[in-house]
This record gives sequence, structure tokens and C-alpha cells, in this order.
Amino acid sequence: MGSSINLIIPVAGIVAVLFALYLARDVLRRDAGTQAMQDVAGTILEGAVAFIRRQYTTIFLLAIAGAVVIGAIIAVVETPEVADVPSMAGLPIGLMTAFAFFVGALCSMASGIIGMYISVKANVRTASAAQRSLVEAVQVAMRGGAVSGFLVVALSLLGVWGIFTLYSTFVGDVTVEQAPFLIVGFGFGASFVALFAQLGGGIYTKAADVGSDLVGKVEKGIPEDDPRNAGVVADLVGDNVGDCAGRGADLFESTAAENIGAMILGDAVYAIAVAAGWPNPEAWIFFPLVVRAFGLLATIVAIFFVRGKETEDPMNMLNRGYWVTTLLSVVGLGVTTFVMMDTNGATGTGALALPTWVYFFGAGIVGLVTSVVFVYITQYYTAGSFRPVREIADASRTGPATNIISGTAVGFETTLVTAVTIGIALITSYWLGNEAGLVNEEGVNVGGIFGTAVATMGMLMTTAYILAMDTFGPITDNAGGIAEFSRAEKGAREITDRLDAVGNTTKALTKGYAIASASLAAFLLFSAYIDKINVIQGRRIEAGVPGAELLDSVNLANVNVFIAALMAAMLVYFFSSLAIRAVGTTAQSIIVEVRRQFREMPGIMDYSQRPDYARVVDITTRAALRQMVFPGLVAVATPIIIGVLLGYEAVAGMLMVGTIAGVLLATVLNNSGGAWDNAKKYIESGNLKDADGTVLGKGTDAHAAAVVGDTVGDPFKDTAGPSLHVLVKLLATITLVMAPLFFR
Amino acid sequence: MGSSINLIIPVAGIVAVLFALYLARDVLRRDAGTQAMQDVAGTILEGAVAFIRRQYTTIFLLAIAGAVVIGAIIAVVETPEVADVPSMAGLPIGLMTAFAFFVGALCSMASGIIGMYISVKANVRTASAAQRSLVEAVQVAMRGGAVSGFLVVALSLLGVWGIFTLYSTFVGDVTVEQAPFLIVGFGFGASFVALFAQLGGGIYTKAADVGSDLVGKVEKGIPEDDPRNAGVVADLVGDNVGDCAGRGADLFESTAAENIGAMILGDAVYAIAVAAGWPNPEAWIFFPLVVRAFGLLATIVAIFFVRGKETEDPMNMLNRGYWVTTLLSVVGLGVTTFVMMDTNGATGTGALALPTWVYFFGAGIVGLVTSVVFVYITQYYTAGSFRPVREIADASRTGPATNIISGTAVGFETTLVTAVTIGIALITSYWLGNEAGLVNEEGVNVGGIFGTAVATMGMLMTTAYILAMDTFGPITDNAGGIAEFSRAEKGAREITDRLDAVGNTTKALTKGYAIASASLAAFLLFSAYIDKINVIQGRRIEAGVPGAELLDSVNLANVNVFIAALMAAMLVYFFSSLAIRAVGTTAQSIIVEVRRQFREMPGIMDYSQRPDYARVVDITTRAALRQMVFPGLVAVATPIIIGVLLGYEAVAGMLMVGTIAGVLLATVLNNSGGAWDNAKKYIESGNLKDADGTVLGKGTDAHAAAVVGDTVGDPFKDTAGPSLHVLVKLLATITLVMAPLFFR
Repeated sequence: MGSSINLIIPVAGIVAVLFALYLARDVLRRDAGTQAMQDVAGTILEGAVAFIRRQYTTIFLLAIAGAVVIGAIIAVVETPEVADVPSMAGLPIGLMTAFAFFVGALCSMASGIIGMYISVKANVRTASAAQRSLVEAVQVAMRGGAVSGFLVVALSLLGVWGIFTLYSTFVGDVTVEQAPFLIVGFGFGASFVALFAQLGGGIYTKAADVGSDLVGKVEKGIPEDDPRNAGVVADLVGDNVGDCAGRGADLFESTAAENIGAMILGDAVYAIAVAAGWPNPEAWIFFPLVVRAFGLLATIVAIFFVRGKETEDPMNMLNRGYWVTTLLSVVGLGVTTFVMMDTNGATGTGALALPTWVYFFGAGIVGLVTSVVFVYITQYYTAGSFRPVREIADASRTGPATNIISGTAVGFETTLVTAVTIGIALITSYWLGNEAGLVNEEGVNVGGIFGTAVATMGMLMTTAYILAMDTFGPITDNAGGIAEFSRAEKGAREITDRLDAVGNTTKALTKGYAIASASLAAFLLFSAYIDKINVIQGRRIEAGVPGAELLDSVNLANVNVFIAALMAAMLVYFFSSLAIRAVGTTAQSIIVEVRRQFREMPGIMDYSQRPDYARVVDITTRAALRQMVFPGLVAVATPIIIGVLLGYEAVAGMLMVGTIAGVLLATVLNNSGGAWDNAKKYIESGNLKDADGTVLGKGTDAHAAAVVGDTVGDPFKDTAGPSLHVLVKLLATITLVMAPLFFR
Repeated sequence: MGSSINLIIPVAGIVAVLFALYLARDVLRRDAGTQAMQDVAGTILEGAVAFIRRQYTTIFLLAIAGAVVIGAIIAVVETPEVADVPSMAGLPIGLMTAFAFFVGALCSMASGIIGMYISVKANVRTASAAQRSLVEAVQVAMRGGAVSGFLVVALSLLGVWGIFTLYSTFVGDVTVEQAPFLIVGFGFGASFVALFAQLGGGIYTKAADVGSDLVGKVEKGIPEDDPRNAGVVADLVGDNVGDCAGRGADLFESTAAENIGAMILGDAVYAIAVAAGWPNPEAWIFFPLVVRAFGLLATIVAIFFVRGKETEDPMNMLNRGYWVTTLLSVVGLGVTTFVMMDTNGATGTGALALPTWVYFFGAGIVGLVTSVVFVYITQYYTAGSFRPVREIADASRTGPATNIISGTAVGFETTLVTAVTIGIALITSYWLGNEAGLVNEEGVNVGGIFGTAVATMGMLMTTAYILAMDTFGPITDNAGGIAEFSRAEKGAREITDRLDAVGNTTKALTKGYAIASASLAAFLLFSAYIDKINVIQGRRIEAGVPGAELLDSVNLANVNVFIAALMAAMLVYFFSSLAIRAVGTTAQSIIVEVRRQFREMPGIMDYSQRPDYARVVDITTRAALRQMVFPGLVAVATPIIIGVLLGYEAVAGMLMVGTIAGVLLATVLNNSGGAWDNAKKYIESGNLKDADGTVLGKGTDAHAAAVVGDTVGDPFKDTAGPSLHVLVKLLATITLVMAPLFFR
């Protein structure tokens, strides 16, 4: 059956797209709620579409410019002696890279736009369902979210597979080994779009959130999402354009970049398989795609397990689906490794001498387990009942300053378990792969690094489900907003409040998952970069270029490597600074505008005047778009500048240290933000008491202090943190594509 | 004259100690002010001495335990095949390392205690002088600060020189090349004490500051340092124990560790000089000490230039002395390089072919220039009239949340110029050293790394002056407190306020300087570690240990190195988390106590009841001491654990990435804290206006928001940030000493 298992890739991809369409139809045919609900939902849709249209127009233009520039650079620098495919250096490779880049960009844009559109439709239907049934509301929101989840993963899978098949089958001279290098442009295109989508959306959503809350909740004392607040529609629009479209683009590029990186590492095993005469050497290159296809199928099944009783905790319903996905993924992983890793009976080294596939099955399990561990770590640090959140809530008694100090301490602390978990996952999967004994002709054991790649793929098997849970967050957030805004009856609002709380948790989980996959993938992408450098150096050595030698070590004691590492760690902070500042300044203009409307339209407070929502939406749109471009260009330009100035070895140092610094700073920003958010909710739920046992709830100074922390955390956890995930992977894809430029 | 120039080391050291005694006598014989001033000063002295006695008793016990453990470990692991001095492995080397460690610890403790004692005496005399003359007040405060400055630098110089001379001259079998490795224990002892001194003092000072300000200024609306605040004495005590003793210990270990590292690198040039028959090969090892001795002499001269007119800005008087120090240091650097780097007329490589000493003179100038650049960078980011501080002040109009967001963005942003400046300094000094053409027998050019060492030494020439300016800060801060507390006349308070503002700037400058020296030194200490590893590997290869090979590259692509790097970056956050949390929890207990006193002693507000200051001092002392131990042990244990688990190459990765991560996080913490502080001062000075031009000063919401930022910044800039400086250097000294343990 060997290579016929590859067929699962297009099959699973197409099935998932069809299933997404089925879910979309299912969501759209549901009851769209009362007229009041439809009115506000219409306004949100309008604002979201207006923003997305302008944002994606900008991104589209940037992507075209990017494709042209990249194509031109590659065409110039990809001389025959450094080309991936020597017979077709220069313009052909430039065109192929630019084309892959553009397809990656388009697929990412498409999945972002469609997913967002469905979310905006799902929110009002969730609000409507909440008038009738908790279970139905959960299902509508989850199915709406799953549309994004399936499209993102399926399009990434189909895109990588399609362009790989195109290049390796229909373009002359390209061998199956060379093709992975030619499609790195696809990953770069995806990262490029993700960066701007996440930045623009992240700035929009948090500026609107911070701006409208500070005036509405803090100054005027009206509830969140109250229709008297001129910023409320912008806030609801923001949930869609930031949380849905942004995170979708983020995970789209994760899955694309990490797949391609894993395929590049598969090349090394392919060579061993060919030399050893194993039945299906290409399987080692296709493995990442196949295993992900099984993950997609597992998720489809799992969606049907999202159900339960009306009295049940909605989180349980979602968790049930997650566990089904995980368990089916284990089965899929077992099947895939068993079928594809056929070594003609060759076994691993060491005392165990197990069949080769068993080691990699183990490595994949390590990845799946790591993602589960991250889910629990995130819950511990950001959910209400554990020590960290209580600590912040307690610190709120003594005011906003101690609240911020405490939240910062918690955020910094979260790096401990994060780093230790990643370290253990890396070393375990490396060890398993190493024991498999895949030694190449030069006597190098390539199994260890491939083991980390398999672990990454194992973790990514559940991406579609995780992303569905993530998009569940903004949908329920919006549903709650719509219920509040349309002054729906109390029962419906109670249900949407419960769903919203669950949504906050699932959003935090996804960030933990994105961090975990980025860090596990770091080593894989780093190794892929070194492979690419060595392919180039191999050609240069063949061509007799003086001084050309294989890069067998990235030497931190080299001053250029050290400086590049320093610059990478700096870039992470500087980029975050730009993102956070963008939110701060945009929020300030929203505050000024909302305050102006309250002042100049006194009828707003007694509902006799309708605030000018559109004006706030417009201010936010313009500011967010203006401010997303510079940080994006900084992120794209820095690795290229460093590579040109300091050379290819320095870039490797930049890649590695940039990933470490980025992952940890993102962890700090995401978790401190999440913990502040939930410390506020903890107080609002009446869990904080003073020495006499009096509840310190809403309206107390402790609550006001917690609101400050929550507001500070907004740009941390929803703008800078997620943008850093993208940055980390962008560093990898950009350097993979631009590698030929770094030879001086 | 060759080696007789070495005599400048003990001469300058002893002259500086005598000069410090002269300054101390000069300060002590000045008028000690009114009875009210003497009363409060007496109370501060009492609290400070009580804390320091208990703190240093704990540190002393920890240091004894440390010396015993280190001595024992070294005695066991320093088998003949890995010993620095093969003929005396085991117990003798264990004893020598333990002894060096203990002497380093004692010198550091002595300079901290004496400096703090003089500061506490200088503060009341500064307050008294402020009743008469600005210039006299500046001089008293600066001379009091200079006592610390001279003692710290002189004791570090005399300690390193003394123990070096002892081991290389009076202990049999030790050659001049081997001695630098034997004295690394001195640096470790200094770092060890500095870590606990900085942590304990930093927790004390900021917990007291935050706790007393939040109740006094924010809740009760009484001025800073008002005698009605029960926490005010603890706050004033904190300035001395944290800012004086802590920073003194920090710079003591900087100068010690970096000197020793530079001497280790000098070994490599020594070997070249011996082979080439240059007149004075040992000069390359002694150079770091000699050049620093000239810096000390330059500072003595400069102290006499701290004078001016009554109407002059006090910052100008201090700057005048700084420039005199810098210019005389340039002269000293020229003399030292010219005399000591005698290469019998050999010139550098490249087109210029200048005499060898010129390249290193240039490298030293790079270091001096870098320190000046850092002084201006710090001023730009933390002084009141520039964009960053104005941005934070503006953001305060919309409340504490936007103030914190804006300050975070500014703090993150400061990594840009910091990293770029360090990068340029490193690459320039490396290039200069490289051009000098110091090629050893294996054909390796060792000049580049030595160039970075010379740059570090150039920068450190001005340490004594910088430290004097730094200690000027807490002295004037205390003088202001004493003036306020003793209700001194308005003129005196105006003068102390002006000095306090200058003191805030000088404190920030010192932190920038400490960061710059730590990062420039990182590469030097990293290289020294690799030298040490290769000395050990050389012995193991000689002894025929299987698998022993020279470490010519620290390979980031090695999974163990990557994991160690990840752990190092994590350690930096986790350690900061512990430090920040310690301040937060201690401050909360102070808040509870101060509130209790206001509540239970209603006479406090109308001065009819005297608050129980001692109780707050006692609470703070106990909490700070309890909380300094755990973070300190984490910092000491982590590199050892990583080294034992992952091996010596991984430790090199940890060292490098830990330094990068630590330096950047410290930059963020120091500068955001400084900028928040000055944004508050900017508003208090009436510089912030609303749209109508109305001044938004004290008592407005904008000011309250700025106070929150200032409070958040306190533990950032005065506890976690400075402790990170120490941590970064501790990583280097601990791994240098423990290296033999990391061979599996």
C-alpha cells in the first residue's frame, strides 16, 4: 500500500473543505434571532467587512510587492552554484519562489476572510440559540468556529501538497528531494500575510476594547457592551477581525511552515532510505502531510461529540471533543508511522532494538502529550481558581500598582514550566529519534532532529480542533455583546455569559498551543535552515567557490553570531514595543472620541440619542491600518539586513535566539494578560473578600484596580503576544527563502 | 620600565583607600545639622545598621557554606587530568579556590558595609550643608559617595592583584599563566555576595518605598517622607541598604570578574609574546589591572573638579568631574598601552600597519566612548524633557492603564539603541584587535577577543567616579527626607529637592553603565570560559581521556546547547519574577501595617502621636531577608544543574544566551522604571497641560495615574533590574569556577 497512503492528503483536505461548507450551511440556516439582534449583528458585519476589505487590500498589495521583490532577489542571487535545482537557476527559481509565496499568501488570506465571515454570521445565531438552549448555543458557536478550523488546516495542507506535487511532478528537472526547498516560499507567503493580519487585527481589537472600556466601564460606570457606548460596535468588530482572522492566519502559517520544515528534514531520511533500499523512501518526505491529514479526519469525527446536557459545564462539552480528537490522532499516528516507516525490518539501536516506526510513533505521542500539558499549564496560570490568579486578585486590594506588579511576577513566572516542558519534549523526542538509528553515509545520525519534527507533527494533528475552540471564543464574546446590546432577556444573557467565560479559557489555550508548537518547531526550522545552507554550500563546493565549506556548527563564540543573537533578542522587544504602542495611541484617540460623544450628545445616557458608532469604527480602522505597516516591515527587514551584513552563520544564531526570546516574551505577555483578565473576573464573581469576610466585588477599589490590570493585559495578550508567534515563524521562513542572499 | 609599571596597581589601590579615608574624615567633621536632623538621621542609621548586620550575617554564613561546598567540589572533581595546575590537583586547588572565593566575598562585604556607613553619615551633613550652600551640599554628598566609589574599586583591584601575586609568586608550581584561573574564585565570591546584597537591599528599599508611598501619598494625601507616615523611616533606610550597599556590591563584582576574565584572555597573548620574544610578556596579563589603576588615579583628580557657582545646575558640577575622569582616562590608556604593549616594533596587519599598541588604544577608546553614549541614551529615555517621558506623561491623562501600556512600550523600545550600541562597540573593538595581528602558533588570531577585553577595561576606568555619582543619589534622597522629616526651612528643602532630582538621573546613569559593561564583558567572559574548558581539555587529551577534544565551537544546532539556552533565557524571567514578587508581597504587609497605625493611632495625623517606625523597619527587614535567599539559591543552582545534566558545551550556550536575555530584560526594567518615575516628576513640575492649557499637576487624575506607573517601576528598576546585572555576571563566574564539574 506504500505510497497510496499519500492519497489521504488530498482526500482529507477536500473532505475537510466540504465538511466546512456543510457546517457553514448548517450555521447559516439557523434562526438569526430578533430584529434587534439582527440590527446590531448587521452593524458588526458592516464594520468588520469594511475593515477586512481595507486591511486585506493593503495586505494584498504588500504581498504582490513582496512576491515581486522576492522573485527578483532570488532570480539574481540564485546563480547556478547556489541553486536548489542547478539546471534551473536564476529567473525560473525566482518565479517559482514568487509563485509559491503568492499562493501561500492567497490561501492564508482566503481562510482568514471566509472564517471571519462565518464567525460574524455565527455570533447572532449563537445569541439567538441562547434564548432556547445552552447545548444548541454551544453547537452553533463551535460549528461556526470549526469552519475556520477546517478551512485553515485544509487549505494549508492542500496548498503545500498541491504546490509540492506541481513542482515535483509537472516541472522538469525537479526531484522529490529538491521540491521541499522550492516550496518554502509558500510558508513565507503565509507568514507574511499572518504578520500583517495579526498585527492589524490585534491593534484594532485591543484599541477598541481598551478605549471603549476605559470610558464606558471605568468613567461612566455602564456595563460592558452597553449600547450607549459609542465604542462598543468597534469593540465587537474587533473580536472578529483580531481574534478570528488573526489567529486563523497565525495557525495557517504555523502548519504551513512547520510542514515544509519537516519535509526538508525528511530529505535526510529519504537519502538513507534510498541507500538502504527501503520500499517507500518518499514516505519520509510525505509523512508530515499524511499524519496531519489523519489529524483532520480525527477532528471531523470529534465535532459530533460536542454535545451534552443543558446542565453541563460547556467546557466539558468542548473538552470531550478535544479528547476524541487526541485519541483518534494517536490511532492515526500509529497507523501512519507503521505503514509509512517501512524499513524492511531494520530496527533501532540501543538495548531495545524496536522496529523503527515505534520510535517515531513515540516521538509523535510526545508532541500530543506536550499539547495536552500546555492546555493544563495555561489553565493553571490563567483560570480563576488557582494560585496565580488569586494572587493577583489579592494584590488588587492595595490598588492598581500592586495588581500590575503581581501580574508581571506571574507572567514572568510562567516561563519556568513553559521552558521546562519544551525542554523535556525536545530532548525526549530527540532521544527517541536518535535511538531509531537512522545513520547516513557520512556516519551522522539524522534521526534525532527528525524525531523533533515528528513530535511537532503529532502536536499539530489537533490544530483544526484547537482552532475551532479558539474561534468559539470571539463568537461567544460577540453573542454576549449582541445579547447585551439588543437587551435580550436575562436567560439568554446568562447563557452567553457562561459561554463567554469558556471562550476566554479556550482563547488562552490556543495561545499556549501556538507557543508550544512554535518552540517545538523552532529546532526543526533551525535544522531545516542549516540543511538549506548545506545544500547551497554543497553546490558551491562542487563549483569550486573559494572558502565554501559545510556549516556543521553554528558557533556562538563567533562575534558575528553573538551580535546577530543580540539583535534577534532585541527585535523581539522592539517589535512588541511597536505593537503595544500602536494599541496605546489608537486607544487614546478612541477615548477622546467616545468622551466627546458623551459630552456633546447628552441624550446618549438616557438612550434618547444614538451614539455615532461608525465614526469610532472608522477612526479605529484607519489607525490600525496605519500602524500595522511599520512593525511588519521592521520584522521582515531585520533578518534580511542582518543576513546581508553578518552572513549566513550569524542568521542561524539570530533564528535560534530570536525564537527563544520570542517564545518566552510571548509566554509572558499572553499569560500575564490572561491572568489579569481572569483576576478581574474572579473579583467580579465575588470570590475576593476582605478581612471581615465582606465581598469585594464590582464597584470596589479592588475591582477598579483589577480593571486596570485587565486593560494593560489586553495589548499584551491579544496584540503583541500573538504577533510574536508569527514573528518567530516569519524569521524561519524568511531566512529559508532568502538564504542564498547571505553568502558574501 | 616594562614590568615596573605593575607597581602602579598596589600604589593606586593604596592611594585610593587613603583618599577614601581622607574623604570620610572630611565628611564626618562637617556640621551634622540641627537636633531634629540628627534625631532622624540617628533613627535611619539605627535601622540601616540593624538591617545590614542581619543581612550580612546571613550572607556571611552563606559565603562560608559556599566556600566549603565549592572547595569540596573542586577538590573532588579537579583530578590531575583536568587541573589548572596538574602538580597540585585535588585538595590544594580546592583550598585555593575556596580561599579566593572567601577573600572575594569578604572584600565585597567590607566595601559594601563601609560605603553604606559613610553614606548614612553623609546624608544628614548634606541636609545641614543645604541650609547654607548648594555647592557645599553637592560636595558633601559627592565626597560621601566617593568613599564608596574608591573603596569598591580599590578593594577589587587590591584583592585581585593581591591574591594573584600570592598565588603566582608564593605558591610553588603556579606559573603566571595559570594564576588567573586560580583566582576566578575571587570573582565568584564577589558575585555571590553581590547577588544577596542586591536582592536583599533591593527588596527592602522598594517594598518600603512602595508600601509607605501607597498609603501616605495616595491614600492619605500627605507628602513623601512626611513624619506622620509610619513607613517613612523604613523608606529612608532602604535608600541606603539598597541603593548604596547593593550597587556597590554589584560594581565590585563587575570590576573583579571582568578583570579576571580579561587576564585569562591575556594568557593567550602572553603565549604569543613569549614565542616572539617580546620584552615584557607578562604585561599582557597585568594590563587590565594597570589600566584600571590609572582610572582610579584619574578619578582622584576629578573629585577636586566637582565645584561651581551657587546658581549653577548641580548636574553640571558632577558632569565636569565625569569629563575630567574620562579625559584623564584617555591619557592613562594611551600611556598604558604604549608602555605595556611593547612588541619590539611588530605592527598590525592590514593596510594601516600601525604599531600594535595603537589598535588596543583604539579599542580602549571604544569602551570609554560607549560608556559616554550609554550615559546619553539613559538621559534621553529617562529624563523629563525628551519624547519617551512626555509620551508616558501624555498617556497618563487617560488613566493608569494607558500609563502602564505606554511605559511598557518605552521600556521595550530602549532595547533597540542599547543592543545596537553594544553591537557596534563589540564589532569595532573586535575588528581593531583583530587588525593588530596577534596570531598564535596554531594560526588563530586572538587579538579580536582581546580587543573586546581592552574595550571593557577602558569602559571600567571610570567606575569609581560613576559609583560616586550613583551613591550621591541615595545620599541626597536621604538628605531631602531628613530635611522634610525634620521640617527644615524652605531654602534647605529647595536645595535638597534639586539635588534629589540630579540624584535620580545619576542613579539611572549608573544602571546604564552597569548594563553596558555587563554586555561588553559578556563576550570576554564567554571567551574566558572557553579558554578554561580548553585548558581542561588540553590536560585530558594529554592524559589520554577517551573522547576529549578541544572546544573550538559552541554549536547552537546541538540540542543540549539549545535547551540550555532556553533555560538561561527562562532563568532570567523566573529570577526577576521572584524578585518582583518579593517586593509586592513585602509591600503589601507594610501597607497593612501602616494602615493599621493610621487607624489605631488617630493622633498621628495631627502630630500628637508618633508612629511606630521601628515596627515597620522590623517587618521590612524580616521579609526582605526571608525573601532574598530563594532567588539567590535558584540563580546559583541553575547553571550548576544545567552543567551537570547537559555538559560543558551547553553551559557555554547558557552563558551567552543568558547574558543576552539578562542584559535586555534589565534594560527594559531599568529604563521603564526610570521613565515612569520621571513622567510622574514631569507632571509634578506642571509640564503636562490639557487641551485648554490648564496644568494637570499634583492631585489630578493624570498625576494619580503617573504615581501608579512610578510605583510599578520601583521594583523593576531598583530590585529586579540591578539584580539581573549581578545574575549575568554570576553566571560567568560560577561556570568559570565550576567548569571541571561539567565533564561527563
